[in-house]
Amino acid sequence: MSTINTLEELLVDELRDLHNAETQLVKALPKMAKAASNEKLREGFEEHLEQTKGHVERLERAFVLLDESPKGKTCHAMKGLVEEGEEAIDLEAPEAIRDADLIGAAQRVEHYEIAAYGTARAFAKTLGLQDVAELLQETLDEEGETNKKLTALAGAVNKEAEAVNVDADAE
Amino acid sequence: MSTINTLEELLVDELRDLHNAETQLVKALPKMAKAASNEKLREGFEEHLEQTKGHVERLERAFVLLDESPKGKTCHAMKGLVEEGEEAIDLEAPEAIRDADLIGAAQRVEHYEIAAYGTARAFAKTLGLQDVAELLQETLDEEGETNKKLTALAGAVNKEAEAVNVDADAE
Repeated sequence: MSTINTLEELLVDELRDLHNAETQLVKALPKMAKAASNEKLREGFEEHLEQTKGHVERLERAFVLLDESPKGKTCHAMKGLVEEGEEAIDLEAPEAIRDADLIGAAQRVEHYEIAAYGTARAFAKTLGLQDVAELLQETLDEEGETNKKLTALAGAVNKEAEAVNVDADAE
Repeated sequence: MSTINTLEELLVDELRDLHNAETQLVKALPKMAKAASNEKLREGFEEHLEQTKGHVERLERAFVLLDESPKGKTCHAMKGLVEEGEEAIDLEAPEAIRDADLIGAAQRVEHYEIAAYGTARAFAKTLGLQDVAELLQETLDEEGETNKKLTALAGAVNKEAEAVNVDADAE
């Protein structure tokens, strides 16, 4: 059981959770990229991997500003989200269907991060820590953009996945 | 390793994941309500518990429409999210700070569900399963509403949590 006495301590706790989450994601994204068949999706995962490394760095800058360290917290939710990503990677399915599943897993990750960064940013703002809030906002914007790109890609990939269905019916 | 041959099978798989997620949430929400100090937050959790029971029922109606059953799939991400909720429940902290943490955990859950229902609805739409898509949309709207209410509550609760900080400084 942890003890937290102030909102600033809770903010630091949130940032440690996020730092662990992003670090888990840096390990998971190359596997998701490798499993993707759609070229745009694969490139999207590779691009987001580079962004995610930047998110880790931004969090480390926030820790410096707060005179704190990221030290070992496990983000249980990201652990579960990464497990879902692995289920999609291991799925025995036609390419477009695995891609659709990978997008679903990735959007869950993005939404999780949007919620977590949103909470941390709100704490930073309430505490008047404008510089920390701005760092979190930059990452939040990128997560939102990534999610939008995934939604756009899903439109095309889902149609391909449905065509697989039609082909099977036609046999 | 599972095998999925069609987009409809992937939709059923998503709905099973969601059914398990919502069932886990039905068990977790009463504990979160009990741990909340802010009356509006407690009432919000209680209200969302009733809604969540309705979400389980809607999913069961979707299974009937698809001539399928929910059968046992574990949603690993919700397992992790519930663990985070339990960490907030067990947090040794002033009331407003625990409430702020509970809101953070709840918003992660809502965002996860928004992503998952969004994916399932997109699959249903692509498949032309309008009745299933509508059921999912109804729940999606409620999850979105709940998330907005939590954001509004966070504004007040975070200020209270920050005042705890000020009080401690003043001692």
